[in-house]
Amino acid sequence: MSSPPPPLAGVRIVEISSFVAVPLAGMTLAALGAEVIRIDPIGGAADYHRWPLADSGDSIYWAGLNKGKQSMAVDMRSEQGQHLVAQLIVDSSVLITNVTGRQWHSYDTLCAQRPDLIHLEVLGRADGATGVDYTVNAATGFPMVTGPAGHTGPINHVMPVWDVSCGLYAALSIVTALRHRDATGDGTAIRLPLDDVALATAANLGFLTEAMVTGTHRPRLGNAIYGQYGRDFISSDGVNFMVVALTARHFRDLTDLTGTATAVAAAEEALGADFTDEGQRYQHRDVLDPLFAAWFRTQTAEQITAALSATSVLWERYRTFEEVIGTARVTDNPLFTALDQPGIGRYLAPGLPMSVDGAHTPAAAAPVLGEHTATVLAGRLGMSSGEIAELVEQGVVAP
Amino acid sequence: MSSPPPPLAGVRIVEISSFVAVPLAGMTLAALGAEVIRIDPIGGAADYHRWPLADSGDSIYWAGLNKGKQSMAVDMRSEQGQHLVAQLIVDSSVLITNVTGRQWHSYDTLCAQRPDLIHLEVLGRADGATGVDYTVNAATGFPMVTGPAGHTGPINHVMPVWDVSCGLYAALSIVTALRHRDATGDGTAIRLPLDDVALATAANLGFLTEAMVTGTHRPRLGNAIYGQYGRDFISSDGVNFMVVALTARHFRDLTDLTGTATAVAAAEEALGADFTDEGQRYQHRDVLDPLFAAWFRTQTAEQITAALSATSVLWERYRTFEEVIGTARVTDNPLFTALDQPGIGRYLAPGLPMSVDGAHTPAAAAPVLGEHTATVLAGRLGMSSGEIAELVEQGVVAP
Repeated sequence: MSSPPPPLAGVRIVEISSFVAVPLAGMTLAALGAEVIRIDPIGGAADYHRWPLADSGDSIYWAGLNKGKQSMAVDMRSEQGQHLVAQLIVDSSVLITNVTGRQWHSYDTLCAQRPDLIHLEVLGRADGATGVDYTVNAATGFPMVTGPAGHTGPINHVMPVWDVSCGLYAALSIVTALRHRDATGDGTAIRLPLDDVALATAANLGFLTEAMVTGTHRPRLGNAIYGQYGRDFISSDGVNFMVVALTARHFRDLTDLTGTATAVAAAEEALGADFTDEGQRYQHRDVLDPLFAAWFRTQTAEQITAALSATSVLWERYRTFEEVIGTARVTDNPLFTALDQPGIGRYLAPGLPMSVDGAHTPAAAAPVLGEHTATVLAGRLGMSSGEIAELVEQGVVAP
Repeated sequence: MSSPPPPLAGVRIVEISSFVAVPLAGMTLAALGAEVIRIDPIGGAADYHRWPLADSGDSIYWAGLNKGKQSMAVDMRSEQGQHLVAQLIVDSSVLITNVTGRQWHSYDTLCAQRPDLIHLEVLGRADGATGVDYTVNAATGFPMVTGPAGHTGPINHVMPVWDVSCGLYAALSIVTALRHRDATGDGTAIRLPLDDVALATAANLGFLTEAMVTGTHRPRLGNAIYGQYGRDFISSDGVNFMVVALTARHFRDLTDLTGTATAVAAAEEALGADFTDEGQRYQHRDVLDPLFAAWFRTQTAEQITAALSATSVLWERYRTFEEVIGTARVTDNPLFTALDQPGIGRYLAPGLPMSVDGAHTPAAAAPVLGEHTATVLAGRLGMSSGEIAELVEQGVVAP
């Protein structure tokens, strides 16, 4: 029995991209069943050798963000190369790109040939200025409130939040535009600035709005959670735990667990506080922290794990990447399947994080650069092997 | 002239949620034109008073994540309340929720009444265990590599990355399922664990894969970028800048700008290095950093801004939230429109970060809790005002 076709079966997408956002969008759409052709310059785009690298020198990063796509290598500085790629976009009817300002693959140019085109551009800023996750993030406000309370100067995130969010907004925009086209026949031109992803998110979550409405200056809080009781503690054997008590029940369980119920009640009375109120648990955290920390310091990580597991408290043990890959969350999780990736080897690779009707779509390998150049030219543009050989000879495309 | 209907016009969604992921998904779908009814317990869910708060005590956080929805307040512990909400879900045919393990609104139960139901559950972990952004994040590996090189112990992110990514995967899953249902008539059951969002992302970006494939231990790098040349510098007047040179051209511009071309070339020769290779620029950053830092220390922020603006180098000035809201990126950006939010006031609120055919959809106010209880019961379930009054009297719903 064959499984049902994936939801985006039959959708064809051309991707001209580099780095994270658009590659992630394309990979996500490919995992949903679309046929995604990533088109790179001959020799690869600026992300083709990006770290981390395997011992072979091949980029783990590139392989990780291009799983399940087809790859073509085309000299897009040549007129002939541009013409070929434009034909493919017109044939596919969907373009996603972060290469902006090129007239030959602009919406206006291509729309003339394909009125129902879906065209998505990711740009740095709405005004057309450049920007990457690391620069956009500097201007969000987050690095100034990240890290220990006493620290001065910015602390960057390591996880490129804005790139990932932008890639997911891009994938969402494409599927929304596809559904709209199914219903109306109309195409869509979408512009998605990385900076606007960051600003919208910082505002939606209240970080910008609080500054606008109350003028409050959000302080650096270390690992505490603003307006909630939550922070990290360390065990007698030096293991870090993150502990969160969002509700009154969580908090009661935490005081019971740590044997601090009497001390916490006494502190509550002395302070005239009400610890059933989440904000007051946060405001008086300097009083609460040492009471709980004292218990954690007397217990081993194993004892803490057992004790917290028996409560409603939200908690987790901090882990390094090396520790994460050894946990059952990775080794015994249907999200991950063994993947043979040319140049890199066999490893556990994730599919999409959602299961659909109980099933995960397993990850597919990333292509070798230019692997599909000839098959796409033949299959999509009807070129003969002689014509393709001539294009290779002229340096317009590379296999 | 009226504008064309938004892409999800006519789609009806019930949301039973709290916190970030599912509320963000619902808000995103509402901004795309769906009619989203958020159903809360009478008095509000656990996120209803979450900080930041306005002076009125109303939650800026809640208002920020529920823009453009309708609100109903129902006692979902009562059988009658459950029955009403189940009827609304069956009528709407789409449920998004992070309240799991309730038989009465499970896929299996509701699917029997509505075979084409689209049902999405966000859960903590794939195995059904609880988890929130702060605990999930602790187990990803990121806090152990965030912050200054010399720091020991974890450094949490402030921006809830996994919640936001999860919310966007949820919105994507719903639109994909809607398109699939349009084509086939079939519903979909989707499960989306927050932990799997984090693991898939950490793997896609190579953090987990590198540990699997090469066994490399990723160090703490402060504000440097792994495998690339990029870091923060400080001006003579104490302003921090993030500077990134991804390409050979960026790097050449940076050495020219800082007058270090000769010194960098001499260092390159002495080290036997090749600074046209991004990895080598990263590996020798300890040699490069002081050369560039010396220039930044002699220039004011204004001078640095003018100088960097004339180059290809990627850069940004670090800003606090208070500074961000005063920039033209917020005050003169069509992403933001003035919104009158009851209980909070008038402020600049973002719409979706993407513009569609050149236009942004302006933000709509969040509802007051229970604001639409009566209109939904009347409009969707055909109840009379007498029947509704009786439900209010019995405490099953609240207006």
